[in-house]
Amino acid sequence: MVKLDKIYTRSGDKGKTRLATGEPVDKWNPRVTAYGSVDEVNAALGVAVLSAEGEMKTQLQRIQNDLFDLGADLATPERDKPLGFEPLRIVAEQTRRLEAEIDEMNAELSPLDSFVLPGGTALAAQLHVCRTICRRAERDVASLAGVVDEKVSEHALSFINRLSDWFFVASRFANDKGNADIKWKPGANR
Amino acid sequence: MVKLDKIYTRSGDKGKTRLATGEPVDKWNPRVTAYGSVDEVNAALGVAVLSAEGEMKTQLQRIQNDLFDLGADLATPERDKPLGFEPLRIVAEQTRRLEAEIDEMNAELSPLDSFVLPGGTALAAQLHVCRTICRRAERDVASLAGVVDEKVSEHALSFINRLSDWFFVASRFANDKGNADIKWKPGANR
Amino acid sequence: MVKLDKIYTRSGDKGKTRLATGEPVDKWNPRVTAYGSVDEVNAALGVAVLSAEGEMKTQLQRIQNDLFDLGADLATPERDKPLGFEPLRIVAEQTRRLEAEIDEMNAELSPLDSFVLPGGTALAAQLHVCRTICRRAERDVASLAGVVDEKVSEHALSFINRLSDWFFVASRFANDKGNADIKWKPGANR
Ligand code: B12
Ligand code: B12
Ligand code: B12
Ligand SMILES: C[C@H]1O[C@@H](n2cnc3c(N)ncnc32)[C@H](O)[C@@H]1O
Ligand SMILES: C[C@H]1O[C@@H](n2cnc3c(N)ncnc32)[C@H](O)[C@@H]1O
Ligand SMILES: C[C@H]1O[C@@H](n2cnc3c(N)ncnc32)[C@H](O)[C@@H]1O
Ligand SMILES: [Mg+2]
Ligand SMILES: [Mg+2]
Ligand SMILES: [Mg+2]
Repeated sequence: MVKLDKIYTRSGDKGKTRLATGEPVDKWNPRVTAYGSVDEVNAALGVAVLSAEGEMKTQLQRIQNDLFDLGADLATPERDKPLGFEPLRIVAEQTRRLEAEIDEMNAELSPLDSFVLPGGTALAAQLHVCRTICRRAERDVASLAGVVDEKVSEHALSFINRLSDWFFVASRFANDKGNADIKWKPGANR
Repeated sequence: MVKLDKIYTRSGDKGKTRLATGEPVDKWNPRVTAYGSVDEVNAALGVAVLSAEGEMKTQLQRIQNDLFDLGADLATPERDKPLGFEPLRIVAEQTRRLEAEIDEMNAELSPLDSFVLPGGTALAAQLHVCRTICRRAERDVASLAGVVDEKVSEHALSFINRLSDWFFVASRFANDKGNADIKWKPGANR
Repeated sequence: MVKLDKIYTRSGDKGKTRLATGEPVDKWNPRVTAYGSVDEVNAALGVAVLSAEGEMKTQLQRIQNDLFDLGADLATPERDKPLGFEPLRIVAEQTRRLEAEIDEMNAELSPLDSFVLPGGTALAAQLHVCRTICRRAERDVASLAGVVDEKVSEHALSFINRLSDWFFVASRFANDKGNADIKWKPGANR
């Protein structure tokens, strides 16, 4: 169980830190970057929650909890020898729930024939912020998975990929079900 | 024409994606990073629009549209053989409009003899957020341009460079035309 | 003394810029990235200030000023030959003040046995945004310090490390002294 009491330990002042397994790493290690970016998505979600109500708020807070599962998954890498304990991993069901929620929201939206300008209501605008940070986190997770000898669970990758699509659809949903969307007009100001 | 209907395709779950030309690339490819960061600026702008009115709002939304032109430009690289179609590119006129708007706003501001603490009104504060993300996007675009064999159009670089200066001046303008600016006092808390 | 009057100079349109010493560098140089990320933390703080009052507001604005000291420190590297002027450096006292403020706030909070979902009040939510960007800035500063031949002052590293802990504690403090915190439940949605 995680304990947070003293908060600062000064141990990271030289640029080193530890994974959940206790393994020492540089702070700019791609794995630390990956869960650090996931933490950043989670913080942007905290701002989105400020403007959400009802089912949307429930869903956003569930995703926040899931993102800590994802952080735990990323912070506990498989190495050559067994971990000696059961790690917490993202499971397929978590990505499937995102897909079900996307399908439900998307059913009420009209299809688009151009990109939408991020914005609209306060909630819609902030969900675009979440979306774009989520895609940065996805790049960081994918980049980690691309490093030789570093493993990332397949469900971690599909979860973060689907999550940015969830944010896109939720953003349109929060913008009068897409009716208030302003579309990109290619080259309009030239 | 871009179509957005199904939204999730699951095709990116292994960390690969495609440029606008169809060329397959890793998600952490510097070109994808560059247009992903531009998308992040655009999302921050969506939040700024929430506090803007009148001409400022018009200008912010025009810049949002321009940023999709920039995204399209970056997503469509020149390679050795011809594209076979006319790509959408940022043109000099788009940077020139930013300069004209900077000059117009700057004419009403007093010159500064120190940096300003980001903040002030809600709009001014958010324009500093846009500014700093824009400068990160600029670093990513410049970094892409620095990769051997990768080309970035000169107008893409000048547009993103000028845009952060636009945000700086607009932010001061939105903070009682700079009269409410709080200045940095070097070493004040030592 | 820093002068900001013309704002755009067009000199950065080819992806090059200069450090405070006049040394020419690429825009994506790790040192430029480091102070650029610090600037991003500062912008997020500008948004936090919008919801802060009293002592908290004073503290946030003092940190903003300190972050420009940090930016100046990072922008003025020691090289082989003497600078010829006294550089502005972060001093131990600045980190110590953060620690004292953490201790004071933390004394009023109950210890935690899990991570908290970022969010709560508007101020608490935005302080988590500051926290996560600050940790990204820390990764960038630590990464710079890890580059051969690049020096970063020890106080710069400890300041940025302590600052994210300050944001964590301040966020809990701003969320009804931690009483409104929602905790992570590992694997709750599986
Ligand atoms: C990874 C990590 C993070 C990551 C990701 C976490 C996530 N899940 O998303 C992020 C970046 C979010 C993070 C943030 C913070 N963190 Co942190 N974090 C950790 C770390 C390394 C692992 C936590 C974790 O997720 N574990 C996975 C979960 C599932 O583990 P668990 O609850 O212990 O359960 C497992 C174990 O019990 C395990 N188990 C059973 N038997 C055995 C045997 C062995 C040998 C092992 C290894 C495990 C094991 O089985 C369970 C299931 O897998 C811990 C240090 C540590 N090693 O515990 C610090 C730690 C908890 N964090 C710390 C701090 C200070 C913070 C921040 C305040 C930093 C900041 N300023 O931002 C924030 C708080 C964020 C918040 N919102 O509350 C400190 C707390 C210090 C203190 N005592 O007060 C710690 C202890 C690190 C340290 N030494 O400084 N953190
Ligand atoms: C680059 C890109 C992005 C970038 C940058 C876009 C920009 N302009 O700024 C960013 C990161 C913003 C982005 C975001 C998203 N995207 Co996107 N994006 C693309 C991509 C690869 C290119 C789009 C583009 O800008 N094209 C340039 C414009 C000018 O092209 P155009 O309108 O087609 O016009 C040109 C062509 O017709 C061309 N032409 C004429 N003849 C020929 C012949 C050939 C062979 C070619 C290649 C071209 C060509 O000439 C015109 C002028 O140049 C497309 C896939 C694709 N290849 O189309 C996906 C795509 C449109 N995106 C997709 C998705 C899902 C999204 C997001 C929802 C993802 C997310 N969760 O965040 C968001 C939505 C953002 C929003 N606000 O609406 C999906 C849509 C799936 C669907 N059918 O529902 C697509 C189809 C990718 C995919 N297969 O999954 N995207
Ligand atoms: C580093 C830097 C930044 C960094 C970090 C700054 C920080 N402190 O956190 C960041 C990223 C924040 C930044 C942002 C911006 N910046 Co700037 N920045 C600089 C730079 C390179 C150094 C400034 C600095 O911090 N100096 C350190 C302080 C302590 O120095 P000082 O006040 O001069 O005092 C020292 C000197 O006098 C020194 N000294 C004494 N004798 C001698 C002799 C020599 C030879 C030297 C070198 C020094 C020296 O001793 C003092 C103590 O050390 C200057 C260019 C330059 N070289 O001055 C541009 C500069 C000031 N920035 C500029 C601009 C445009 C901006 C932005 C508007 C860009 C944007 N669009 O976002 C923003 C504004 C931000 C804001 N909120 O106000 C322009 C201003 C152009 C103009 N005249 O209008 C400049 C001049 C760069 C340029 N040529 O374009 N900036
Ligand atoms: C919609 C388009 O966005 C690009 N794409 C796919 N994944 C990411 C990501 N994580 N970040 C930025 N861009 C991405 C691809 O080019 C895709 O086709
Ligand atoms: C104002 C100062 O900011 C630095 N600079 C120039 N471009 C960028 C960027 N994209 N990101 C961060 N810093 C930058 C240079 O040092 C310049 O002089
Ligand atoms: C709380 C946990 O966060 C990780 N950690 C330490 N420093 C950083 C940082 N700058 N960014 C992201 N994660 C970090 C370590 O794993 C630490 O134990
Ligand atoms: Mg995707
Ligand atoms: Mg510039
Ligand atoms: Mg730390």
